[in-house]
Amino acid sequence: MGKTVTLGEIMLRLSPEGFDRLFQNEKLVATFGGAEANVAVSLANYGEQVSFVTKVPENVIGQAAINKLRSFGVDTSSIARGGERLGIYYMEKGAAQRGSVCIYDRAGSAFQKSDMSDYNWDDIFDNADWFHFTGITPALGDNVLKICKEACIEAKKRNIKVSCDINYRSKLWSRDKAKSVMTELCKYIDVCIANEEDAKNVFGIEPDNNDVYSGKINKDGYQYVAIELKKRFDFEYVAITLRTSHSASVNDWMCMLYDGDRCCYSKNYHIDYIVDRVGGGDSFGAGLIYSLHNGYDAQTAVEFAAAASVLKHSINGDFNLVTVAEVERLTKGDGSGRVQR
Amino acid sequence: MGKTVTLGEIMLRLSPEGFDRLFQNEKLVATFGGAEANVAVSLANYGEQVSFVTKVPENVIGQAAINKLRSFGVDTSSIARGGERLGIYYMEKGAAQRGSVCIYDRAGSAFQKSDMSDYNWDDIFDNADWFHFTGITPALGDNVLKICKEACIEAKKRNIKVSCDINYRSKLWSRDKAKSVMTELCKYIDVCIANEEDAKNVFGIEPDNNDVYSGKINKDGYQYVAIELKKRFDFEYVAITLRTSHSASVNDWMCMLYDGDRCCYSKNYHIDYIVDRVGGGDSFGAGLIYSLHNGYDAQTAVEFAAAASVLKHSINGDFNLVTVAEVERLTKGDGSGRVQR
Amino acid sequence: MGKTVTLGEIMLRLSPEGFDRLFQNEKLVATFGGAEANVAVSLANYGEQVSFVTKVPENVIGQAAINKLRSFGVDTSSIARGGERLGIYYMEKGAAQRGSVCIYDRAGSAFQKSDMSDYNWDDIFDNADWFHFTGITPALGDNVLKICKEACIEAKKRNIKVSCDINYRSKLWSRDKAKSVMTELCKYIDVCIANEEDAKNVFGIEPDNNDVYSGKINKDGYQYVAIELKKRFDFEYVAITLRTSHSASVNDWMCMLYDGDRCCYSKNYHIDYIVDRVGGGDSFGAGLIYSLHNGYDAQTAVEFAAAASVLKHSINGDFNLVTVAEVERLTKGDGSGRVQR
Amino acid sequence: MGKTVTLGEIMLRLSPEGFDRLFQNEKLVATFGGAEANVAVSLANYGEQVSFVTKVPENVIGQAAINKLRSFGVDTSSIARGGERLGIYYMEKGAAQRGSVCIYDRAGSAFQKSDMSDYNWDDIFDNADWFHFTGITPALGDNVLKICKEACIEAKKRNIKVSCDINYRSKLWSRDKAKSVMTELCKYIDVCIANEEDAKNVFGIEPDNNDVYSGKINKDGYQYVAIELKKRFDFEYVAITLRTSHSASVNDWMCMLYDGDRCCYSKNYHIDYIVDRVGGGDSFGAGLIYSLHNGYDAQTAVEFAAAASVLKHSINGDFNLVTVAEVERLTKGDGSGRVQR
Amino acid sequence: MGKTVTLGEIMLRLSPEGFDRLFQNEKLVATFGGAEANVAVSLANYGEQVSFVTKVPENVIGQAAINKLRSFGVDTSSIARGGERLGIYYMEKGAAQRGSVCIYDRAGSAFQKSDMSDYNWDDIFDNADWFHFTGITPALGDNVLKICKEACIEAKKRNIKVSCDINYRSKLWSRDKAKSVMTELCKYIDVCIANEEDAKNVFGIEPDNNDVYSGKINKDGYQYVAIELKKRFDFEYVAITLRTSHSASVNDWMCMLYDGDRCCYSKNYHIDYIVDRVGGGDSFGAGLIYSLHNGYDAQTAVEFAAAASVLKHSINGDFNLVTVAEVERLTKGDGSGRVQR
Amino acid sequence: MGKTVTLGEIMLRLSPEGFDRLFQNEKLVATFGGAEANVAVSLANYGEQVSFVTKVPENVIGQAAINKLRSFGVDTSSIARGGERLGIYYMEKGAAQRGSVCIYDRAGSAFQKSDMSDYNWDDIFDNADWFHFTGITPALGDNVLKICKEACIEAKKRNIKVSCDINYRSKLWSRDKAKSVMTELCKYIDVCIANEEDAKNVFGIEPDNNDVYSGKINKDGYQYVAIELKKRFDFEYVAITLRTSHSASVNDWMCMLYDGDRCCYSKNYHIDYIVDRVGGGDSFGAGLIYSLHNGYDAQTAVEFAAAASVLKHSINGDFNLVTVAEVERLTKGDGSGRVQR
Repeated sequence: MGKTVTLGEIMLRLSPEGFDRLFQNEKLVATFGGAEANVAVSLANYGEQVSFVTKVPENVIGQAAINKLRSFGVDTSSIARGGERLGIYYMEKGAAQRGSVCIYDRAGSAFQKSDMSDYNWDDIFDNADWFHFTGITPALGDNVLKICKEACIEAKKRNIKVSCDINYRSKLWSRDKAKSVMTELCKYIDVCIANEEDAKNVFGIEPDNNDVYSGKINKDGYQYVAIELKKRFDFEYVAITLRTSHSASVNDWMCMLYDGDRCCYSKNYHIDYIVDRVGGGDSFGAGLIYSLHNGYDAQTAVEFAAAASVLKHSINGDFNLVTVAEVERLTKGDGSGRVQR
Repeated sequence: MGKTVTLGEIMLRLSPEGFDRLFQNEKLVATFGGAEANVAVSLANYGEQVSFVTKVPENVIGQAAINKLRSFGVDTSSIARGGERLGIYYMEKGAAQRGSVCIYDRAGSAFQKSDMSDYNWDDIFDNADWFHFTGITPALGDNVLKICKEACIEAKKRNIKVSCDINYRSKLWSRDKAKSVMTELCKYIDVCIANEEDAKNVFGIEPDNNDVYSGKINKDGYQYVAIELKKRFDFEYVAITLRTSHSASVNDWMCMLYDGDRCCYSKNYHIDYIVDRVGGGDSFGAGLIYSLHNGYDAQTAVEFAAAASVLKHSINGDFNLVTVAEVERLTKGDGSGRVQR
Repeated sequence: MGKTVTLGEIMLRLSPEGFDRLFQNEKLVATFGGAEANVAVSLANYGEQVSFVTKVPENVIGQAAINKLRSFGVDTSSIARGGERLGIYYMEKGAAQRGSVCIYDRAGSAFQKSDMSDYNWDDIFDNADWFHFTGITPALGDNVLKICKEACIEAKKRNIKVSCDINYRSKLWSRDKAKSVMTELCKYIDVCIANEEDAKNVFGIEPDNNDVYSGKINKDGYQYVAIELKKRFDFEYVAITLRTSHSASVNDWMCMLYDGDRCCYSKNYHIDYIVDRVGGGDSFGAGLIYSLHNGYDAQTAVEFAAAASVLKHSINGDFNLVTVAEVERLTKGDGSGRVQR
Repeated sequence: MGKTVTLGEIMLRLSPEGFDRLFQNEKLVATFGGAEANVAVSLANYGEQVSFVTKVPENVIGQAAINKLRSFGVDTSSIARGGERLGIYYMEKGAAQRGSVCIYDRAGSAFQKSDMSDYNWDDIFDNADWFHFTGITPALGDNVLKICKEACIEAKKRNIKVSCDINYRSKLWSRDKAKSVMTELCKYIDVCIANEEDAKNVFGIEPDNNDVYSGKINKDGYQYVAIELKKRFDFEYVAITLRTSHSASVNDWMCMLYDGDRCCYSKNYHIDYIVDRVGGGDSFGAGLIYSLHNGYDAQTAVEFAAAASVLKHSINGDFNLVTVAEVERLTKGDGSGRVQR
Repeated sequence: MGKTVTLGEIMLRLSPEGFDRLFQNEKLVATFGGAEANVAVSLANYGEQVSFVTKVPENVIGQAAINKLRSFGVDTSSIARGGERLGIYYMEKGAAQRGSVCIYDRAGSAFQKSDMSDYNWDDIFDNADWFHFTGITPALGDNVLKICKEACIEAKKRNIKVSCDINYRSKLWSRDKAKSVMTELCKYIDVCIANEEDAKNVFGIEPDNNDVYSGKINKDGYQYVAIELKKRFDFEYVAITLRTSHSASVNDWMCMLYDGDRCCYSKNYHIDYIVDRVGGGDSFGAGLIYSLHNGYDAQTAVEFAAAASVLKHSINGDFNLVTVAEVERLTKGDGSGRVQR
Repeated sequence: MGKTVTLGEIMLRLSPEGFDRLFQNEKLVATFGGAEANVAVSLANYGEQVSFVTKVPENVIGQAAINKLRSFGVDTSSIARGGERLGIYYMEKGAAQRGSVCIYDRAGSAFQKSDMSDYNWDDIFDNADWFHFTGITPALGDNVLKICKEACIEAKKRNIKVSCDINYRSKLWSRDKAKSVMTELCKYIDVCIANEEDAKNVFGIEPDNNDVYSGKINKDGYQYVAIELKKRFDFEYVAITLRTSHSASVNDWMCMLYDGDRCCYSKNYHIDYIVDRVGGGDSFGAGLIYSLHNGYDAQTAVEFAAAASVLKHSINGDFNLVTVAEVERLTKGDGSGRVQR
């Protein structure tokens, strides 16, 4: 089995402690994160070979990002160095009716200003058989979009499977821009991952009777969404995460995987206390890549990926700090939280 | 629109971190709070002009209290300096079946020992059109009661609207004393705010079939309470907060506003994870003052005030660190806790 | 009323802050705990005379364990000093579907390597009328088992009541070994305490239709378990705790006490936010010893012990930091978490 | 050898972390301290039997003070319970040219309002052969002064040795008041302890050419002070600590003990980094009591006491957390700070 | 006396705790700072009326900066809102031979991108009689330089005294650029403040036998520098701070003020433990402005300003959290760090 | 240039925060360290290829140790997994006259119980040209000694340079045992590193007039020690670190390198504030290996290594978190601690 390559931005994540509001006091927790980096870390935690590709500045902040990735065993040898700054995002975790707040301070980052010469595709894709990126990367600006597209082309040239999480971010681009760009990129994508809002935001595909902000999710309707996406872009797989947000602290979580044949739904999980929901979708994506990479059937794959992402909600920070064994214990039904001793 | 004046005591609040018990370990979180100060901070956060009137000692503790208030933009220029100490309260936050513990160490505070000469009503009420206090202030002793009454008289002289939150505290005075004092003060009050226990504790007015300690709240019965209060004291508005305490971590919360005509109920909110419920009532009061001050109708007002106080439950410390925009997002139905990004 | 003697191991407990995973960052919270030490601390908090018997090393770690016990008023004068190390356990608290993780690093501890000469039974049992241990102690190795049995014999010689919490730990011994050892020790035991899994794991006694890992507890079936245990070992009392684990954050909790005549069930408690469930069983045991020691009837006793252990779930660390008054407030029905002020 | 009894006030000590200024941020470190309590803790750490006598309130704050004392093995059984509050002092540690700041909030404490009926001298002095107090206790008010004097009388009745640290506090009383009270109490005192300022402040005795605020200490001149004190009050021993304060971070420290015959000076210690100098004098007093109690000659005694107090400067909080072995290593000359491994 | 206006950038300052290296662990301390903001805060702490003028973004980070300034009583009503980000600087405090590390991430800040329309000079200078800025402000880019020059012109128009701290930053501009810009701006400046390196870096004026990196400062030589500066630019006052850096932890500090007549030197201070030296120069500048604003003679002024900046070295963060009384105690010679109690 | 291989034990290091004493409060800082691991991390920080060889348990603690090493880029692919526990050491940092305290709890560690089959020398030494270990490794027990000797033999077989730091630990073995073992191992060693005590403790070689515990170091005398060591064991290089311990906070530090021809002394450094001296010797060793590996002459090498280890004293934890550029800035004379900005 080859390595997985992920391409994207890694940012410094600054969060207050616990459920404090930003700048309520002087303490910030400084970690790192970013959609594709989160996927890379998950895969490394599952024992996969995985390389993260980006550009970070030649200073202690860029080095700290690399060190964090290395600590999990992510291959960082293709990361370019240079540019002026590492992007930052401030993340204030919500509780009950108060939603989480995300403030981006990522303009002008080394990755966003990187150009084609920072990427050597032969080195990057050496020994790779999977390439993953998300819709955030092309949203970061035209040169990154170009790099992203080039990566897709280079991957397909090498017969590398391409997965993409749509990950629409309204703070980064408009729906129209997203639609035109993603429509173009979808040509290269084999495995498409979306959440309950992405298909609507980017492609205008939506189930009936759905209102994600009032906690009403029409789960069956997403079957239609998956089939429709497959029709339009001829994906091999379409995966959709279905979050029912009762509040910032309590969610239901269920996932679906359409393999062109069947729509396999995972168990529905009632998450009764959320520590940190950021990276929930990324941890699903990583679980899915791991599963498909290891030849799991669609039902097994979606159960693994769903369980992985359920566990993420109980873990601080962007990264899903769980092992394959821990995910499997949950897929086998032990969500009781009992202590093993 | 004029400024709002609030009069009361601000205390040093000492809490253990998270849900630790008091003195379980060496760390304390030192913030400031007090019913009327909490209202002032909320109003400042909503962009209102608001002045807080009290007396604090001439030392770094008194100065720190002033600095904290100033940081929110509260006008502190009418705060008298002197006396011996700032009152303290120890607040241990409860969880599940373990209730919060509040220990007062406020005797002998600068405010409690202040006298009439510390207050220049012309300066204090200059440009004001609203005056707010709570039942805690007159409970602090006879000289403070006198000051409080004088403030009411001076306010009414100037045609300033007076609001009061009954806020009965059994650790400060008896029901009998409270009843006689508050009956006297109610003469000056236009807007009366109470929680589900106050009317019973102070005026002996109570709905049938009500048991707040077992989680049974007869919501409709409070209509009777409001009408009865209005009858006795001829208030312009009576507002009541209705907390159903399932546990220290999970509450239902609903509010009512009687405008002499209709009893308007807010939505009922299920708060599924409480970070800190202290100041919940104060944040309702502030939301109500803001709403009425800005001419909202009764239904809009009670919805705004209820949503504001729901959000307070997710925020550490006494102060409700939210903006008008955040409150309005909740009144419009987004309590899903989704991340905006 | 005489003093209670508890015999067992006290360990250094290392936990990450909040719900962080072990080694997610650099901070660890260092406290102490152990099944019998937890019981001793609870009893001291209830104002009982209680002595904890163990052996700890002659270094600052052993001294710190003693200091912690002394801080609660536990008599530590019978603790032997010497040996090489204090046992350690790493405790990572779970949340939602992620269960708590317990890693023992207790091999070679001073207590496990202690021998008969470290214990002077005349001093230890001087003025005692109750002796408590748990199934963890004999599981720690043959010399500790011998000491444990000797303690039972010496206790019975002096007409001291003996209680034991079965406390089966699969990481310490096999079911077979546990069965043969505990069968032998049960001869000396008057009060037997077990959780919903112990009777099955150690003695193969189990109710029908029971699956503790999927959240299905057949509460009535435990009546059969209690009667069966009584039959086999002629206990005076059999107490069983019944945990329904919805997740690591939300549990139901109910307890039963069989006095040879009636099976008394406590109220069922819905614990909607768990701070730390470790020591839940120990706090039940302590509540039961306190109750029986003070002559409470079976129903009163099980209600006190159940309420005590419910409160433990809201408290960080192994120790149940509550007073008799706090437990009694909950038995009287105030689990609303309202602030007393 | 009998036990030592110390009488005085224990306070909650609130300090910011590290060298932060008070209220620079939200975190406070909550410990306990007080001149006589500090002596008691030191003696307990040396393995002496020691009882601390005071009165603390019947709440968790009073209980926490008792628990802290118990953790070191101090006998707390003679501590009265009741009254309204535990005194507080805010301690901001200085660095370099910025001196430490001490703010008392101790008025109205349980101890200050205690009366004779709170103290049973027969119980208190049972098995005692040493009684220690400091000049802070009589400075706290007339009823405490009366109790203090009574304690002296009761001690002398029982042939108990009495030691007193003059400990003049200008924030508590005037020099005149201190002089008249201390002159009276000195009748009962066998061992008088003072620092380089006390004799001047209280009794007007001062060496020539001395200016403690500019770092000039006339060490030889203190011989005259000791002899003069002995002359006036017929003390058995006079001990004086001589601090040369280069800054809040760097001090020289030397001590003297006059046994009526010789003035024995300790080594001079250059303390090149001060962690916390509070309790430096108390730790000297405790070292002296320990030494004299154990029959050390004057030179040995002053060296032990000086080394003990040197170590205190490296330890956070009021309490001197050192053992006899650690003090003796320093008296033997190992102040090199080398790691033993 | 009128108010002082300061113009400049305020940044988010991110520092690890204590003397940890950046990203050595997850905790960052988030405060705010910037040369001119630091001066404003000092002046507010001295009770002066002071307004800080800048532009910050319309988000919680910009708001937090404003709140911090307001907490000290700095007038923030002339701060413009808008733009994209608040500048950041990472500050790692050095110790011993390891120097502090400062990493700027300030490009694209709201202030740097602000334009003339953000500043209403009539409002800004209303009631002002002093204007202060530093060489950092014009170094931030041409539009800021233009604003800075306009401010000088507007100030002089109104007969407002102008002070400037040269504050050369090699990371922001070259010596050549600095020279040409500062030469132009010096026309408007009445009070020029520089450190031991600035005059050389910007104007090429340097004493003989000076090597600031090896700890050799030719103090007398700076008399020549001051006279030379005065000659070139006709300043009313030239002030120079003279730091002898033995290490990151130990410095000597002395200041000089030339009033056109005499060169007044302050005492030399040996700072034997540095908590945080950032803002040392700014605190000198503020002390000088305070002194001259209050009519102190040159010797008194330089002593006050020097003592103020000595104290800054003992305080964490950019801001000098001291009062006039504390500074004066040091000027009067009490640098002994004794506790006042 | 080939990679460096280091062999040894990595332990969990548990330290209280700042200068607190062990268990003074509940917080511990959990990092990792060990003499050879420290060298590996330094080399990785200098950009060298370096592999660390050991055995750690198959649990999260062992994994965390690996993750920490990986974060710096240390190659961990030769680390064996298995065994029962990771060794622990408790490290309490000293200040002023209070020395640091080190408590080992390392018995029974995975590394100490590892056997020859855990090490594949062909893989381990693939592409290596340097092998480093310290005297701690053979001190850990006979099987580890055997592994260590085998590693030396295998290294010499491959013409790999071998360096060893004597690192005598009296808590691990006697001087006699150390002498006989190290005499045997010295046969394989090319570069011998020792501190001012090692040569005396292990080989009985000592300069005249030397007393390390009273701060008297006869620097010239060490020339004799180096020559004597070279004579006995025919080392290529002998390096000696010379610490003059004024206290736990202030040290002088100088190093010497004897290349068989000249004794080159580094500058003497006065370290005026020590953050953490643990790992000082290891950081010297790493600096030396780096220097010799890169062909520096003896004087340059000893200056680099000395500067590297001086910087270590300012850094928390075992690891020397510095770059080549930072070390070189100090060798070039900038120890002034000035901020670069």
